Formats: sequence, structure tokens, C-alpha cells
Amino acid sequence: LDKLTYVVAIGAVVLAHCASTLAIEGMWQPNQLADLSADLQEKGLALDPATLQLDQYPFNAVVSLGFCTASFVSPLGLVATNHHCAYGTISYNATEQKNWLRDGFLAKTIGEDLPGEPTLRVYVTQSIKDVSAQIRAGMSAQQAGLVRYKLIDQREKEMVAECERDAGFRCDVYAFHGGAQYFLVKQLEIRDVRLAYAPPEAIGKFGGDVDNWMWPRHTGDFSFLRAYVGPDGKPADYSPNNVPYRPKSYLKVASMGVKDGDFVMIAGYPGRTNRYRLSDEVDNAIRWQYPTTIRRYTQVLDVLAKANEGRPAAALKYASQIASLNNGMKNFAGNLDNFKHIDAVAIKAADESAIMQWSQKQPGAQTASESLKKLKLVLQEARSHRDRDLAMRLLGFLSIPNAAQNLYRINLERTKPDAEREAGFQARDEVRVEGRLKQLDRSFDRATERALATFVFSAYLDLPAAQRVPEIDAWLQLDAKGKPKNLPGLLDAIYTKSALLDASKRLTFFRAGQSAIEKSNDPALQMAVKFMPAILRFEAQTKTQAGDEAWLRPEWMQARIAYKNSRHEPVYPDANSSLRITYGNVQGYAPQDGLVANPFTTLDGIVMKNIGADPFDATKSQLAAIAKADWAKFALPGKNTVPVNFLSDLDITGGNSGSPTLNAKGELVGLAFDGNYEAISSGWIFNPKMTRTIHVDIRYMLWIMSKISGADNLLKEMGVP
Amino acid sequence: LDKLTYVVAIGAVVLAHCASTLAIEGMWQPNQLADLSADLQEKGLALDPATLQLDQYPFNAVVSLGFCTASFVSPLGLVATNHHCAYGTISYNATEQKNWLRDGFLAKTIGEDLPGEPTLRVYVTQSIKDVSAQIRAGMSAQQAGLVRYKLIDQREKEMVAECERDAGFRCDVYAFHGGAQYFLVKQLEIRDVRLAYAPPEAIGKFGGDVDNWMWPRHTGDFSFLRAYVGPDGKPADYSPNNVPYRPKSYLKVASMGVKDGDFVMIAGYPGRTNRYRLSDEVDNAIRWQYPTTIRRYTQVLDVLAKANEGRPAAALKYASQIASLNNGMKNFAGNLDNFKHIDAVAIKAADESAIMQWSQKQPGAQTASESLKKLKLVLQEARSHRDRDLAMRLLGFLSIPNAAQNLYRINLERTKPDAEREAGFQARDEVRVEGRLKQLDRSFDRATERALATFVFSAYLDLPAAQRVPEIDAWLQLDAKGKPKNLPGLLDAIYTKSALLDASKRLTFFRAGQSAIEKSNDPALQMAVKFMPAILRFEAQTKTQAGDEAWLRPEWMQARIAYKNSRHEPVYPDANSSLRITYGNVQGYAPQDGLVANPFTTLDGIVMKNIGADPFDATKSQLAAIAKADWAKFALPGKNTVPVNFLSDLDITGGNSGSPTLNAKGELVGLAFDGNYEAISSGWIFNPKMTRTIHVDIRYMLWIMSKISGADNLLKEMGVP
Repeated sequence: LDKLTYVVAIGAVVLAHCASTLAIEGMWQPNQLADLSADLQEKGLALDPATLQLDQYPFNAVVSLGFCTASFVSPLGLVATNHHCAYGTISYNATEQKNWLRDGFLAKTIGEDLPGEPTLRVYVTQSIKDVSAQIRAGMSAQQAGLVRYKLIDQREKEMVAECERDAGFRCDVYAFHGGAQYFLVKQLEIRDVRLAYAPPEAIGKFGGDVDNWMWPRHTGDFSFLRAYVGPDGKPADYSPNNVPYRPKSYLKVASMGVKDGDFVMIAGYPGRTNRYRLSDEVDNAIRWQYPTTIRRYTQVLDVLAKANEGRPAAALKYASQIASLNNGMKNFAGNLDNFKHIDAVAIKAADESAIMQWSQKQPGAQTASESLKKLKLVLQEARSHRDRDLAMRLLGFLSIPNAAQNLYRINLERTKPDAEREAGFQARDEVRVEGRLKQLDRSFDRATERALATFVFSAYLDLPAAQRVPEIDAWLQLDAKGKPKNLPGLLDAIYTKSALLDASKRLTFFRAGQSAIEKSNDPALQMAVKFMPAILRFEAQTKTQAGDEAWLRPEWMQARIAYKNSRHEPVYPDANSSLRITYGNVQGYAPQDGLVANPFTTLDGIVMKNIGADPFDATKSQLAAIAKADWAKFALPGKNTVPVNFLSDLDITGGNSGSPTLNAKGELVGLAFDGNYEAISSGWIFNPKMTRTIHVDIRYMLWIMSKISGADNLLKEMGVP
Repeated sequence: LDKLTYVVAIGAVVLAHCASTLAIEGMWQPNQLADLSADLQEKGLALDPATLQLDQYPFNAVVSLGFCTASFVSPLGLVATNHHCAYGTISYNATEQKNWLRDGFLAKTIGEDLPGEPTLRVYVTQSIKDVSAQIRAGMSAQQAGLVRYKLIDQREKEMVAECERDAGFRCDVYAFHGGAQYFLVKQLEIRDVRLAYAPPEAIGKFGGDVDNWMWPRHTGDFSFLRAYVGPDGKPADYSPNNVPYRPKSYLKVASMGVKDGDFVMIAGYPGRTNRYRLSDEVDNAIRWQYPTTIRRYTQVLDVLAKANEGRPAAALKYASQIASLNNGMKNFAGNLDNFKHIDAVAIKAADESAIMQWSQKQPGAQTASESLKKLKLVLQEARSHRDRDLAMRLLGFLSIPNAAQNLYRINLERTKPDAEREAGFQARDEVRVEGRLKQLDRSFDRATERALATFVFSAYLDLPAAQRVPEIDAWLQLDAKGKPKNLPGLLDAIYTKSALLDASKRLTFFRAGQSAIEKSNDPALQMAVKFMPAILRFEAQTKTQAGDEAWLRPEWMQARIAYKNSRHEPVYPDANSSLRITYGNVQGYAPQDGLVANPFTTLDGIVMKNIGADPFDATKSQLAAIAKADWAKFALPGKNTVPVNFLSDLDITGGNSGSPTLNAKGELVGLAFDGNYEAISSGWIFNPKMTRTIHVDIRYMLWIMSKISGADNLLKEMGVP
């Protein structure tokens, strides 16, 4: 154990005696829970905190989909998750004739489940092993960043390869506290995952993008998948002979739901937070990253809109990218909006200064101060080429140049031993790289990308001189005034002549070999070959930075953790897609002075929001069922209606979508699917007064399944009486 | 008394026994209140309802500013109204050096009051006389619309002229229920009105256009004027020798404010509502008028933005028009938004059908049915040229052609006896017409209007053939394809050569005489001369329609009133800028399922909304005063803060701005200044669950005056201890 890990462990022990000082903020590692027992019980947990273990109920019923969280809810591999997490699979199966997206889907028997889209997986975590000592062995402050990066990268690859020798498992190493700790996570990878049930989109996505990040909310964001394995019980590719997976446990459904103030907790896989980032980094996000990206994305959206005008087929191809850009913009704008009211930079700066002041009285004060100083220099260096990095990211929006890069790169990497190949271009990745090249046309229109290319190169040409890339400038053949000689000609060559425009020809280059590509006169491949030295140089720059940070952030986090522990405050790591637990209570909030948000919404709101048009287009059957007022057992106590969504003070982020919401006894009372508007900025700062998680209420799920979809088979399978 | 007036009176008597069935909806005429006594008392009025008379306290302290409402609050003519009602006068006095708009203004003594902008008036209503019989005498169903229009117009002009022989008074005839009743209103016209106090704009307009129509609200929308008269006590032009006007009464300030559920009432001058319009009219508004106008205004705003880009002086000239267009668009869009949730057409149609069904069993059923049918035909005819009317309205956005029209028209009208001249072009109007021509340059930029002219003529050219105007087509010299031969040339002539571009030359035409203008070769005047026959034709068309409606609407309203009275429901007339009373209670609402809006906002919200930038840029002195927590006597009971704005279920509309909010004893507890978003559509339909009036709380006014502005002189003058 290195010094830092030791401090983390000590800290947690101290904490166990100070539960009442805890805030609700926290995405806890499973191994931290034992030390939070008192607080868990104070907030209302009725289970023995000692049972909150990875391999025990309820946590062993929680799974990952890679990009979302889910949970087993029956002995036959039935998996509950969000509608938006199953969206890819629903639309993968939908046709004009059988429009499951619009109409919803129900497999009345197990054999009727629809196949998942090809990349759909269920990951069941088997073990989480502390490998900090192995990864960090021999690391030192003196090492060059790139050397340290390669050391970590190599050790991780070795560990993963070793772990994955066990067929049917996926292994990953996760860094915590910026690299203070490393854990090797081993997951069963179930690769035959099917669709068992989805409500109509008008329920599952009610409110659409308009209501995204909004409260009050009325979205039935739930669906059911089913995990299948081979007849031998082991993960297998899709086959009609496969059988439902029998999980070690599955969640009990608490059809009575929760009430205001009740204890709730979530186990899930939050993707990424920046809670421990420095004030410099928040400042960069607020003053440069968000506004600049919004400006550029707006321009990209304008270009796409104009290019796709009157061309519905092209528009359809870019629909997903456009939705994703809009979603990103809403997030960035939401962050900026919230940060008008919270001086995030000042808060982080005050935090840093408090840590420094305390540290200066501790042994080893010099280290914290030096690390902070060095870390700030590393970040400053990165900021010096941020405009260039953004320009390069925009170039990455172009499918054909991108495909050319990937074709050249995979051929380049193949010249090395597999262990030395770049992550993403190893033997294990080849199927995925080839698949993406095959599917390129699904999201590509030649005329649209031609227009986008003109824009992204004009954005590149906006770069200040110091951030220009010689290889790109050379390709552009700039004249004395810095204007490209004939950019339209260069782009015309790519977008009329490149073989990569043709899916069948494109793939002939996949195994063509380095020299064939270098000698090719294909304009897209020539461009890739010319740009490659720059790409590799920037990659090395990024790795150097990562290697520097892998030393400096842990050093600084050590000071932070020691300081927090001295105040009896626990420290959870920033989210990193690994399993975390958050707990707290059902709770509304005051979005503004003079406004009170109740913790529950109801069917009344669906009728009020319904305008008979997307995204507020409630189905006739639902409106009829509401008018009938047949709530079965699912009414909100004391109200003549069914609850739809509810709020809690839990701490989640992207990746937590689909997480089961558990009551005090660890039973299923809903699914987390979003945060409120004020939670957008919780990636940086958690505001306990304002940050809320939005859940779909189990009673709404069951009412819809029972009264709208006739999914009695599933209700029975889940043991709902 | 004609038949209809009789029914109205009977109705009210019946009602007095059925108070508990009354809704809060209603803009009551003062003479209707006696019959609402029971309901007034049930809602909490502590005054004797019999004292609610025009000439008694508190109503005789309520005055009109013409475009806003106000009230006397001291024996020395001090007048309370909204900041946005005094805005013109504040900015009229503001300079870069003495920026009263930004910094606020306080006259520490009576002599220091600043002059009002030239058109500022205080109107004190003296009498309201029923002149229905005189106006309607000899009217019949058989008359042609234009004949009836001229009859009414002539009688109104005569009555007004007779009434205004009393110097210092202004008289107007108001039509009620579409012409069922006419009242002659006589008002003292005080024409020396000055500014006594205004808070800084960051208080008085806190939230600006962003918060316009929004709740929760935190706007200190109040100011104080002072009415002056000559030393003889009679209205006089501004003079340093004038003395404060001594009103018959003034409102007592209730500095303890109101609490949730308290009785409140408002006397004021609401401008216009459409509550009794037919379903056809709502349908036209929703399906054509609002969306089409939004589309056209958006285009106009685009043209103005592009034309003014990089030209701040031009931008400043159009700032007011742009604000007004945006304000209109927010209103139209808000109506459309609200009508997504309320099927207004169906509601109005059901209402009409209920009235018709009931009427068919009553004597004279034929009349109601015939009137409704004829009225619908009149409206249909009007709709047939709605596109043309909108195109003509857009042409009216052009200052120079407009000025040319007015110059030609005033010279044309001068050829007739004064009584026969068109309203707006009579002898009494000449000063105003000339003033507008003088001030044209304040809101005119040649290049911007040139760009706008290109747009409005292109909008004209979009008209379907049937709606085209021969006179305009002829001026445009359309070719065989219907394209103008040389529109740029025609516009260039106007915008480079017209004498009207020069303020001094422009006025030489004011008294030039008809033939001089007709013979002039000025391109703008030539255009006006060519267009005039069309203008006069459309005017006659409008008058014919008005004359038809003046008979048919009362006939239909008679059926409606009889029907409502049969159900013991009172009928108040649509707003028409005459004095009305609305009463009800302090009350919050539920804007959405899951959200509760408290009736009060507080200083906390100012701190929360403050972002240090317009329109949420709280002043340092206010933030410091809040931090000091010195609430004096003005805190909200049970809360450690001062109330800012509050909600009631009162029924107001534009024109009510500045109205004193009175408590159960008729004392001043605030000023009405806006409605909530859901109230935007209350012009058509009043939704008692959702429609709320927003008031600035007297405690906030007094706290600001005391703690921020040091306005102790005014507090003392108002008798605030």
C-alpha cells in the first residue's frame, strides 16, 4: 500500500464516528459503506449495513450496460433499465410496419423477446481488486510524464489480458483520485441481451428533449431487457438455443412505492465528475470551454441544417448527431446558467487555499504545495493549445477523413506486437474498428459532409498562428496571406474521388498494409498520411500530460484527503464509470424563491402537459385509462391519482441512468433517469439545496404495464401480486 | 333606456342573492358593485359596500394616466404608479451626467420634482353618465353599417365637444357590450405632472423583459409623480408658479401589508379584453392572427437587426420599436402556448351553443339567432381581407410614407367643417399631429427604413391576387409577371430625394393645402396622394364593419346577458379603458402538476436571481442592505426577510398597470403591475385556477424608500410612521 491509500483508509475509520456531519453528496465505493453505517441508518436504511456488499442482495442484482445501469428483477434474467437506455435496441428492431418505438413492445412469452442491437451487453461485476501497489510500483516524481504514462498503460494492459484469459469476462482497470488508487474490475459479459418490454415512446420519452433536465417531469423512462446465455449457462453469441440467464439474485419489487422523506439508495455506474478539479479548470470551463464549444456547435448545427434542408434522407442520417450536439449544448448552457448564480471558481479557490493553509502545518507540507504548483503548470500548458485541440476535434466530425485516419492507423499499429499497439487498435479492437467503418454510411451524406468540411477547415484557419499545425497548413497549401490555395479543390477531390466513399472499396484498405496506404493516391488516404505525424505528436503530448497528472493529482489529493479527514469529512472519488452507491431521501426542493417543487408528480400533469403533439403527445389509451381513474393498487396515498416521477437528494451523473432506486429494505421503488436543471452543474459542484435526482416511480411503471400494456406476464414474473 | 340596458340592470339585482356562485373573474363597472355587496363581504371587504362610489374614498383617489392607472397618496398631489408607467418621464429627464434611470431619483423637497414628458397627464374622473339612449336613438337594424357608424361618431363628437366646453376637462364616450350601452366620462385633465421619486432601474425594472409576464417575480415596479395646478387650483401648463394639486381624497398607506388569503381589490382603467368574442374570432386569432403576426414581426426584427448592425446610433433609434415588437411577440406566443392546453375555440363554441339553445325557448329567439348569423358573416367578410390589412399595417411601419400620408390627410381634412373632420385630424388634434411629425427623426434612420421598406413591399407582393390593392400595384408599376418594374428605384427616390427626410422642410407641408401637396413632385407625397383613395376605401370598409357590429354585437350580447342572468350569473362588460373594479384575495397557484407558487416572493429571491448583469443586476446598496438584515417594520411575518411581490386572483389587463391594490379597509397595500404567464391568454378566457395578478408589495416599496433611497420626506408626507 502506498502512503496515500493508507490515508484514505484511515480517513474512513475516523468518519464512522461522525455520521451526522455528512452531507448527502457522495458517490461511494462499495468498500467505503462499512464505515458509513451510522449515517446510512440515520437516514433510514433498514438493512444491516454489513450486508451492503458487492456479492450480496441487493447489490449483486445491479448490472452495467456499459453506458447505463440496470438490474435483475426476476429469476429469469429480466433486466429493468431506462427507456432511453434501451432506445438503440428498440429502434434497431422497429420498422415502418412494426413500429415498436411508437407503439411499444411486449413479449408475451420468453421466446418472443427481440434481439438487442449488436453492441448491447450486460456486465455483471464479479470482483473489484485493489491493484494500486502493482500499478504504482516504481513510479517516482522524477519520471518524465510519457515514461510514467507508458508504464501505467503497459501494466494495465497486462493485467486486463491476464484477467480476460477467463473466457466470457471483461476486465478493466479504473484509476481513483486521479491515480492514487487503481482497481481491477472483473465482469461477466453477457452478449445475448434482448428486448422484453418497452412502453410507447409517447410514454417512455414523454416530454422529449424539451423536458430533458427539467422538473416537474412526467416521463415513463423504463423498459425491460432479458439476458440470455448458452445452454451451459455461459455467455454466448445470440442463438435461438440460448436460455435466460439465472442471476445470483434479483430485486424484489416494492409496489407500494415510497413517500416524501423515505430512505432511498442507488447502486450504479456513474461516468464522470469533476468535483476535485482545480479552480483553474473550472475557470477554463466557464470562460472558455463552454462558451467556445457552444459557439462552434451552434455553427455546426447551422451548417447541418442548411445542408440538409429539403433533403429528409440526409437529415435522418444526421438526426442522432444533431440530437447529441443539442444535448451537449443544453448541458454546457445549463452549466453556464447555474454558474451565474454560484461563483464556482471562488469556491474551488477557497477550498484549495484552505487545504494549503492546513497542509502547511503538517509534515510533508512542501509536497502538497509543490504538486499544486506543478499541476497548475501542466494545466496551463494544456490550455495553451486548447484552440488547436478544439479545431482538431471539429475535424474529427468528418466521417471520411476520420475513416482514412482509422484505416491508416490500424495498419500502422499492426506492425507492432499486440501488447504494444495503441489501445483501441489492438487485436481485440479490430472487429469494432471494422464495424464502424462498415456502418459509416448510416450517418453520412456526401453533400452535407462536404459543407461541414468547408466549415471545419474555416474554423481551423481561425486559429492563432502559434496554434497552427504545420502538417495541415502544408496540406492546405497556404499562400503568402495564409489563405489556402484551393480548399474547394482539395475537398472536391476527397468528396468526389475517394474510394472511401464506397463502403465496399473502403474495407479493402482495412488490411492493405502500411505501405500500400502510404503509396495510395486516394485523396482521403493521402490526407491521413500527411496529418498522421501531427496526430501522433498531439497524442504524445496528451499522454505526457496524463502521465504528469497521474503523479501530481494523487499528491494533491493526498493533501485534500488528509485535510478533509482532519475535519472528519469523508472523501469519495470522482466518478470514473465504476460501481458507486449514493443514498439519501425522497425530497423536493425550492427551485426559486417563491416556488416549491413537490417530490412527486402525478398523472394529472400528463393531462396538463398533453398538447397532442410531440413531445407532449399522450397516447389515447393512456388518456382513456386516466379518465377511467382505475388506479388499481398504484395510487399515491391521499391523492386520487398515480405518481409518475419523484425526486430525491441522491448524487448521480451520466451512466447512472437506469439505476434501480432501492428503499430502506433494498427493494425496487423506481429507476433513476435524470437530474433537475440545477443538477447540470453538479459535475463540478454538488449543491445539496438544489441538486436532485429524478426517478420514474415503480407505481407508474406497474400501472402502465398493467393498465396500458397488458404486461401481466412480466408483472407475474416479477412477483407483483 | 333601451331594452338591453334594462336586462343588464335586472340581471344585477337577481345576482345580489347568489353571491356564493360568483367566480373571481370580473372587471366590474362602479355602478355594478352595489349589487355585488354580499359577495364583496364574503370575500372579506370590511368597508360598507355602499361607500364604493366613484366620488367617495377610496375610489376618488384613483386616477388615470391615459395608458396606466395611478392613485393619490398624499394631500399634496403625490401620485403612486408603476416604474414602467413613469419610465417615459424618467428617461425624458435622464442625461449621461444625471442618469436618473440608472441611479433613481428623489426630490427631497416639492420644488425639486422633475418635469413630466410633454404628454404626461393625470385624469381625475368626475362623472360617468349613461348616454345610451341619446347615442342609440333612431338606430335600427335596417341602417347600412356606414350610416350607423357616422350617426354614432357624430353624436359622440357633439357630446364630447359640449362636455369639453368646460375648460380643463377631457371627455370621452365609451361603448359597453359592443354598443349596448354608452357612457360619457368627464375627467379633470391635470397637465403639469412631475416626477417625485423613482428607484434605480435595477430595482424598478429588475428582471426586465426576461421576467416580463413571469412568476416568481422580484420587480420594484413603483414610482411617484406629483400633480400640479395653477395657483387658482385649476389645470395649467407647466409653470414654476404652479402648486401641488389638492385631491378630494388620498389613499391611506397600510404599511403592515397583506397576508395569504386577505381580501384585495383594485380600481383601475383596463384597456381591452375579448372575453365575449365569438369562437370564430378566437379561431382566427389562434390559427391566423398570432402565428402570421409572429412570422412577420420576426422578419421585421431580422431586417432591423441586420440594418442596424454595427450602427449603434441607428439601433438606439429603433430600440423602442424593437422592444415593443418583442413584447407583442411574447404576448402572441404566450397566447398560443396557453391555448395548446385550453381548447378556447371549443369553449367559446359551447358557450354560444348553450346561449342559442336557451334563447330558442325565449321570446324574441329569432333576433338572437339572426344577429349571431349576421355577425358571423360580418366577421367572415373582414377575414377575407385580413392579409391585406396586415400588409397595410406593415406599410404603416415606414415613417416617411406615414408622414406623407398624415401631411396629405390633415390638409384634406382641413377643407371640411371641424365637426366633420376625421377623428385624429380635427382642430383639437393638430398640435399632436404636428408634434409627431417634428419628432419623427427620434425613431428614424434612413438606411434602416430603406431596408425595412424593401421588406414591407415584398410582404405586400406576397398577397394573393384577390387582396391586392390597385393603387399600390399601379405605383409599383408591375410587369406582366406581377413583379415591380423598379422598386429599388422608387424607394431610392423616396429615401434620397424626399423633402420629408428633412424635419424643417417636412413641416412646410403641414399647412401647404390640398392642391399644393397634390401638385408636389416630392416622391413621398406623390405616393401618399396615389395611395389615399385606397386608404379612404379601407377606412370606409372598417367603419361599415364597425357600424354593423355596433348593432349586431349588442343584439347578441342581449341574448348572452339574458341567458347568464337566468343562471344568476352576472355579466361585466369587456374592458374598454373605462374605470373598473376587480376584487378577490391574495392567493398563490399551482403553475404545473408538482409545483406550488407561493403568493409572496422575498428579498432572498433578489440575491438568488442576481447575476451582476442586466436585467438581474441588483445594486450594491440593495445587496448591502439585504446583508444587513435591517427590515425595519417591513418584514414578512414569520420570515426573516421583506416581501417583494405578491399574487392575487384579481382580474386585470393592460391599462391596469399602476393600479393601487387596496385591502379590506380600502388602504394601499401595493400596486398591480403585471400578470403571470398563464394570464396572457386571459384577454380571451379567464382561467380562475391559473390567472393571477402580480403586485409590488407596499412593504417592499417602503423598505426601498427608507433603506435604499432615504426618501423619508415622502414617507412622512404619506403618513408612514
